[in-house]
Amino acid sequence: MLRNFFEAKSIAIIGVSRDQNKVGHVILRNLIDGGYNGKVFVVNPNAAKILNKISYDKVSNIDEKVELAIIAVDKAKVMDVIKDCGRKRIKNVIIISSGFSEVGDKKLEEKLKKLLEKYGIRAIGPNCLGTYDAYTKLDSMFLPRYRMKRPEEGYISFVSQSGALGSAIIDFLSNERYGFNKFISYGNAIDIDESDILKFLDEDTRTRVICLYIEGLKDGKKFMNIIDKIRKPVVVLKGGISEEGNKATLSHTGSLAGNYEAYKAVFKKYKLIMVENLEDMFNVAKLLEKGIKIKKDRILVITNGGGYGILSTDYIVKNGLRLAELNKESVKKLRKDLPKIVNIRNPLDLAGDANVGRYKVAIEEGLNDKNVDLLLVTVLYQTPLIEARIVDMLIEMNNLKKKPIVIVSTGGEFTELLNENLENNGIPCFRFPNQAVRAIKLLVDYYNS
Amino acid sequence: MLRNFFEAKSIAIIGVSRDQNKVGHVILRNLIDGGYNGKVFVVNPNAAKILNKISYDKVSNIDEKVELAIIAVDKAKVMDVIKDCGRKRIKNVIIISSGFSEVGDKKLEEKLKKLLEKYGIRAIGPNCLGTYDAYTKLDSMFLPRYRMKRPEEGYISFVSQSGALGSAIIDFLSNERYGFNKFISYGNAIDIDESDILKFLDEDTRTRVICLYIEGLKDGKKFMNIIDKIRKPVVVLKGGISEEGNKATLSHTGSLAGNYEAYKAVFKKYKLIMVENLEDMFNVAKLLEKGIKIKKDRILVITNGGGYGILSTDYIVKNGLRLAELNKESVKKLRKDLPKIVNIRNPLDLAGDANVGRYKVAIEEGLNDKNVDLLLVTVLYQTPLIEARIVDMLIEMNNLKKKPIVIVSTGGEFTELLNENLENNGIPCFRFPNQAVRAIKLLVDYYNS
Repeated sequence: MLRNFFEAKSIAIIGVSRDQNKVGHVILRNLIDGGYNGKVFVVNPNAAKILNKISYDKVSNIDEKVELAIIAVDKAKVMDVIKDCGRKRIKNVIIISSGFSEVGDKKLEEKLKKLLEKYGIRAIGPNCLGTYDAYTKLDSMFLPRYRMKRPEEGYISFVSQSGALGSAIIDFLSNERYGFNKFISYGNAIDIDESDILKFLDEDTRTRVICLYIEGLKDGKKFMNIIDKIRKPVVVLKGGISEEGNKATLSHTGSLAGNYEAYKAVFKKYKLIMVENLEDMFNVAKLLEKGIKIKKDRILVITNGGGYGILSTDYIVKNGLRLAELNKESVKKLRKDLPKIVNIRNPLDLAGDANVGRYKVAIEEGLNDKNVDLLLVTVLYQTPLIEARIVDMLIEMNNLKKKPIVIVSTGGEFTELLNENLENNGIPCFRFPNQAVRAIKLLVDYYNS
Repeated sequence: MLRNFFEAKSIAIIGVSRDQNKVGHVILRNLIDGGYNGKVFVVNPNAAKILNKISYDKVSNIDEKVELAIIAVDKAKVMDVIKDCGRKRIKNVIIISSGFSEVGDKKLEEKLKKLLEKYGIRAIGPNCLGTYDAYTKLDSMFLPRYRMKRPEEGYISFVSQSGALGSAIIDFLSNERYGFNKFISYGNAIDIDESDILKFLDEDTRTRVICLYIEGLKDGKKFMNIIDKIRKPVVVLKGGISEEGNKATLSHTGSLAGNYEAYKAVFKKYKLIMVENLEDMFNVAKLLEKGIKIKKDRILVITNGGGYGILSTDYIVKNGLRLAELNKESVKKLRKDLPKIVNIRNPLDLAGDANVGRYKVAIEEGLNDKNVDLLLVTVLYQTPLIEARIVDMLIEMNNLKKKPIVIVSTGGEFTELLNENLENNGIPCFRFPNQAVRAIKLLVDYYNS
């Protein structure tokens, strides 16, 4: 049933102003410009046409089928609009409108809830930012595309209790080439809450990893019941873990966030991947999005920058991961095929004059060595001997699907360009060694939990 | 005397191949393309002209004054070249050539050292990446400009024992709009070592913060003597802090890095800012580069995204910093000037529909409140109500120079564009709240040490 929120073939936007800055208008514009393929109907009793579309005075006057309504009217009008949606037999609504329990009007929210139940309407919101699907381009977010880019198709889905945080992250992920699937800002969760969404995403074929930002849970028992059955990795960041932060959640989402220790115990019991910041969340999500799965943690570090090899080693040790011990055959082969200046050990420093050929020898051997579980390859593209075609070689090696290859490379435009090619071909790239190692640690712990 | 390495008015590049990929050729090209204003002489006995410049067979045959030589010949020729530099009375050389102690040839390095002493020549290198000055554009780095961008003028100087790490970071800093002054890769430190460079940078008017990546110290006693007198903040990252990482430094820079606890004790005693990763290094450097200086740590968090306010609060508490308690006057004034939906507290959540005016009221009051030491302003630009002119308001407020303003904003192109304007006007911007808070923590600790 939640599927319709992302795949509806016909949408009515109720409350489309002629004013370009108003919420309903921005949503209409986004659906038109963003490539959504279904039908879009406009509802505004005070206009004849908006953006060249006929404007209906109410949704029940549309004579075609409407599968989803996006409601962006003033809160005083929401009840009437829902009744009209009921008449039109619309079963899914996204209520963008705010002014309910989040500002203390619990009564109105309760009335709205009963009305939705009466008509059997499933609702996201009220007081939410909306939803986004990178595949269908069904986009109910009221933020203009020039301010907030939409991410590319992929397998991360993101659920956020905070709308603004969600929008900032979506924009960031777009810029950083993350592969994305669905975003849901569920607002006051009058009907559909974080647990319903988790259940839905677990069954959703295009979701490989679920990222969840929450401050408090609507219904802890329901959450535990559902999370117990989830098979996909869920990365969770909880806001309000300090006493002061916890107090602040009261004025944000209207509910105290509760004791962090209790949350931690639940997250641990149900094997959620707990993070303390957004960077870690999307770093580990990047690995999961690419389908990387490892239980063993013997890492081979390959580098053309000695300092990066040493720092990577420090972080591997600090995070309790293991440095692979190359087997004798590999050592022999590497000694034969690499120049004398390369010291055959782990970290394997191919030296400042390393070229693509040297990297190929090292990576091939790492993929063959049964003592190695994952290759952490740091490539600094600044030196001219690393020809851009290293990208092709890395992709070829990765496509053998023998072992995960994780890239670390720091730099500017040239580096970003090459990394873009790697990421589009399924190889995760990180800017700094500590980020990559931290993400690997979270991944390994998850698959061993 | 070190000044000449960055401000020489005439340079001879010794060993300029006609091959565009060779080190000497790349350096020549970089000096021509990069805007260096002095004279550049080319030395190559086997060519008449290179890149339209006369090629001399030896440096002593140049009849004009030469203040600095950059040596990029084969190691077998370095001794003869130095003798010729001696005859020409050149007092500063950068020896890019490698093949000395780093590959075990300590004898040759010892001979070279004696020869340099004989002529009274001060040398950087051998086996180094070179130097860079963002103001004079004196650029002896052998990496092409299309692979490694050069950063803009500013006040961070960076000293790196690892050349490759240095190049990756320079490229990264360029892309991220860091204000930069000087870079030095000192290689084997046959003459000038990290301590000499620190002393020089401490006296250098365009350096506000020194960043240092080291694996081991050449001369610990000398380091302590010099660091004791340094007045500028030095941010240090030491590679090889784990046993395994420490072993790897042996094959990288040729010297065991030594016990980390001993290093830590020294760093602490002499009030260096110790970090464990490159991100933290350049995050705190960003604050120091902008001249931000605070001893007290009472932070006011202002935001238009509730989740960001809550996360910032969590990080402030976790890092042992303080949330400012607004004084009664401020509370009264904010209550009067802000809409009712804004709960007057810290974090101050201006709500999702906050506009520039609301931010101005909050910031002005924060700057006036004597209980507040620093304003941590998170602005999520995705919402259309935050007009782009917020940038002008923020710059105006910051120019009052009352208190530091630190910005957190996450996003894509639009966000980056606005942040670029802020940073060009002296306001530091971070992508995530934990990064900003961590940097503030390092800064506060430094000014209280």
